Amino acid sequence: EVGGFSEEVDKIRLEYVRLFQFENKLMPSTWIVIRIDGCHFHRFSEVHEFEKPNDKEALNLMNSCAVAVLEEMRDIVFAYGVSDEYSFVLKKDSRFYQRRPSEIVSAIVSFFSSMFVMKWKEFFPQKELKYPPSFDGRAVCYPSTEILQDYLAWRQVDCHINNQYNTCFWMLVNKKGKSKSEAQDYLKGTQAREKNELLIKEFGIDYIELEPMFRQGSSAFWEKEEATMAHENGASMENPHKKVTVKHCDMIKPDFWRAHPSILNEKRPDF
Amino acid sequence: EVGGFSEEVDKIRLEYVRLFQFENKLMPSTWIVIRIDGCHFHRFSEVHEFEKPNDKEALNLMNSCAVAVLEEMRDIVFAYGVSDEYSFVLKKDSRFYQRRPSEIVSAIVSFFSSMFVMKWKEFFPQKELKYPPSFDGRAVCYPSTEILQDYLAWRQVDCHINNQYNTCFWMLVNKKGKSKSEAQDYLKGTQAREKNELLIKEFGIDYIELEPMFRQGSSAFWEKEEATMAHENGASMENPHKKVTVKHCDMIKPDFWRAHPSILNEKRPDF
Amino acid sequence: EVGGFSEEVDKIRLEYVRLFQFENKLMPSTWIVIRIDGCHFHRFSEVHEFEKPNDKEALNLMNSCAVAVLEEMRDIVFAYGVSDEYSFVLKKDSRFYQRRPSEIVSAIVSFFSSMFVMKWKEFFPQKELKYPPSFDGRAVCYPSTEILQDYLAWRQVDCHINNQYNTCFWMLVNKKGKSKSEAQDYLKGTQAREKNELLIKEFGIDYIELEPMFRQGSSAFWEKEEATMAHENGASMENPHKKVTVKHCDMIKPDFWRAHPSILNEKRPDF
Amino acid sequence: EVGGFSEEVDKIRLEYVRLFQFENKLMPSTWIVIRIDGCHFHRFSEVHEFEKPNDKEALNLMNSCAVAVLEEMRDIVFAYGVSDEYSFVLKKDSRFYQRRPSEIVSAIVSFFSSMFVMKWKEFFPQKELKYPPSFDGRAVCYPSTEILQDYLAWRQVDCHINNQYNTCFWMLVNKKGKSKSEAQDYLKGTQAREKNELLIKEFGIDYIELEPMFRQGSSAFWEKEEATMAHENGASMENPHKKVTVKHCDMIKPDFWRAHPSILNEKRPDF
Repeated sequence: EVGGFSEEVDKIRLEYVRLFQFENKLMPSTWIVIRIDGCHFHRFSEVHEFEKPNDKEALNLMNSCAVAVLEEMRDIVFAYGVSDEYSFVLKKDSRFYQRRPSEIVSAIVSFFSSMFVMKWKEFFPQKELKYPPSFDGRAVCYPSTEILQDYLAWRQVDCHINNQYNTCFWMLVNKKGKSKSEAQDYLKGTQAREKNELLIKEFGIDYIELEPMFRQGSSAFWEKEEATMAHENGASMENPHKKVTVKHCDMIKPDFWRAHPSILNEKRPDF
Repeated sequence: EVGGFSEEVDKIRLEYVRLFQFENKLMPSTWIVIRIDGCHFHRFSEVHEFEKPNDKEALNLMNSCAVAVLEEMRDIVFAYGVSDEYSFVLKKDSRFYQRRPSEIVSAIVSFFSSMFVMKWKEFFPQKELKYPPSFDGRAVCYPSTEILQDYLAWRQVDCHINNQYNTCFWMLVNKKGKSKSEAQDYLKGTQAREKNELLIKEFGIDYIELEPMFRQGSSAFWEKEEATMAHENGASMENPHKKVTVKHCDMIKPDFWRAHPSILNEKRPDF
Repeated sequence: EVGGFSEEVDKIRLEYVRLFQFENKLMPSTWIVIRIDGCHFHRFSEVHEFEKPNDKEALNLMNSCAVAVLEEMRDIVFAYGVSDEYSFVLKKDSRFYQRRPSEIVSAIVSFFSSMFVMKWKEFFPQKELKYPPSFDGRAVCYPSTEILQDYLAWRQVDCHINNQYNTCFWMLVNKKGKSKSEAQDYLKGTQAREKNELLIKEFGIDYIELEPMFRQGSSAFWEKEEATMAHENGASMENPHKKVTVKHCDMIKPDFWRAHPSILNEKRPDF
Repeated sequence: EVGGFSEEVDKIRLEYVRLFQFENKLMPSTWIVIRIDGCHFHRFSEVHEFEKPNDKEALNLMNSCAVAVLEEMRDIVFAYGVSDEYSFVLKKDSRFYQRRPSEIVSAIVSFFSSMFVMKWKEFFPQKELKYPPSFDGRAVCYPSTEILQDYLAWRQVDCHINNQYNTCFWMLVNKKGKSKSEAQDYLKGTQAREKNELLIKEFGIDYIELEPMFRQGSSAFWEKEEATMAHENGASMENPHKKVTVKHCDMIKPDFWRAHPSILNEKRPDF
């Protein structure tokens, strides 16, 4: 019987399947980091002819999506992106989805993916999006601010090391006409210092002069607008506007966190 | 020192943060169901002026995205969708992402979301997509085929009950000029049978005659193409083509599963 | 203020610490196996001068404790023990401690340990228990009866292989005067067949003639008492008595399970 | 074939069952608390005729077992007991059983249970242990020292509230001849202050004068022996002896932790 009494009986009998949903929740009072990564972005970047080793517009698109995520999900207090990966930090006392990891990860990755497709034309007006990009994600908790900062430093060190390698690799391929495997062999076992020397001597590139976004990755966070703006005409503003900014700065040394104590002070920005 | 020795030293010191990644894996040899749900789709359907109680094109778009998911992720053997939710069933012995729930959920929800945005114009050529849709997801395991079938039946019973209610509700609002809260009060406590009678007597609607997609939801799965096609001209085809089809059929009675024994026979389709 | 109002206020403020208790539950409708192992029993068996390679009384004590566990915890339908380890199988639909693993494991291991100490004198009237034995435990779920039977077969194969090795090892040490490391070297890389030949040729031992308890381990389960007893004098017994028996039988071949269909038929014995 | 080649083949085939063991580990760098509770100790205390509301010898036995646990398991830095429950705190960076909860819980609860039985005669020379006591346990992690201290304060507040209630209850039953349900009704809804007044006025008991062990519970931890002892005769001792002491002190106010900074300073005592 369709739409009849039997459905209601069935529903009661079948409710037992809900017991299989396990209520895995992330530990309260710990920093939640959601890290998302492009799926098969090696192929995606080739199909869409991204510049190597870094495509500025592709990174700007990633950053723009990350900013949108911060604007949409107010429990996120910081984000750090490099290449096709982005880490989102939720405040320690977040109750987003009651701290269920799959739900938090999926909501962020879904919004990010939709936004990426919607904004594509804005950053690549001349390029067609050939197939849907996708990202996977995972949640990790960190029990103290120090360990969270170490996590972010770890991602930034990774950015440095990869970028330096990739810069050398693509210079050897594009400027010296080496094959990819030749370039790989050439760089095998070289130290950071040797790679910097290679860039200077062979290509006249001072690594430190390269785009900060390439060397340092991108950090997105809420920042108060200039106090001077807020107080022009002598009027006091009770609700200073905030907006999400993207910066390329060193998170390995403690200076950044000292200069921005409000980011991780465990209080969410007031809106 | 940027890009220098200190980064390599830092990387080693910082590697400890990896220990915080916990390797939660879904039990082997159990059916994995990933259920995704639209986030705030009540608002999304209003902003985009979806027809009530069911917008055929919106459902077709959902189904089209689900078909793309099955084509992309070959461990998915079945999917069932209703309204803004879709359940994807992975084969019991799937090793997709080593069975880590957040990664599986995020990869599916991300691909689905990207596809939803990319296909929007195809289904709504006259409507602009006003903001990025997003979906959340979760993973649940079922240890036996019987329980999995009960899960799917449970979703379909829910579809029936909701659709019958919504059909009555919107008829009262759209055809009888009742306010939403009046319609709600009117339907409070009515049995399925009473709702069917309301539809017949007041609106001349035989519930059983409504679109199967509205009443039964949509099932997507791999199906062999017609044997007659495969054998035309007497030629035998060694590789019968398969494709993902969408059907609207009863999964509560055992007939469907008897008619399609290959779907859950725990072997993946051979490609 | 002790015992005053402030305690009640404090209690309310402090209740938040309960949020850190995570409700990890074992998947419903799966077989739960609790396997316990003696902690540092190598040392324990030396200090208490257990016979090598098998101490019959120590095994009898283990079995006696396992029988007591089955009698105490009625959700356990089967147990298998070898050496200082014991596996307890809970029925699929058990709700013992709401299926929380740490609680189930701890309750079983605690009862087993207490019983081991209490029964010591019964099995070792001449030996003093020199220090408290302890066991650790873990829970594993198996989604089907076949996989559960494979688990038990796996433990029994392990028993066979270890016992054969240990029998050879201690014969070489005790009868041939080899040192432990000489015996180890001698056996390195030998196949099962070679070990059996060694036992026959050097020590006149036919492996198959050794105590079944040593070769096969011990299975404990509820068994109906003889039907003939139940019906003596022509009286029908409505409540046939059951008791826990210990057998030493082959669980690798299917015969055992065919002969005892009631053990895993997913219904608990009726008491 | 027993003990032959087939076992080795079987073992390889059966190894897959190991995949079902899930590697659930407690978050690194967090305090681990293992709380154990007597199973059905209401009955146990009646069968063994414990004094009400507090049996001093039973508590001394509990404390003695807890001291033995601290001596045996050096990662435990603190323990707090009240009635038939005990909480054991492992240092933040403990790698005991690779932080797997069931194994840690079971090892502690098993050792505690064995010890309880072994020490019974020492504390109850005139009483026979009638059946094996058992305890269940669970693991909870706390990410900061403040939250851990709140957990311990929460247990101590519970101790206060329960002890005050129980003292009144048993006075009414034992001294006033009330039935248990009359005593229960009498105390229903009374505030802490009223209970204290009841004790004073009706029974001449000043609550604050009761045994500290009953009012405050028991804390067990490693303490350096007197410095004066260590340095007598002007000789310097390189290895100051430590031992586990049991104190009954207030953990709700910060004074205790200030006076004993070494307990939770995240370094284990050096042995």
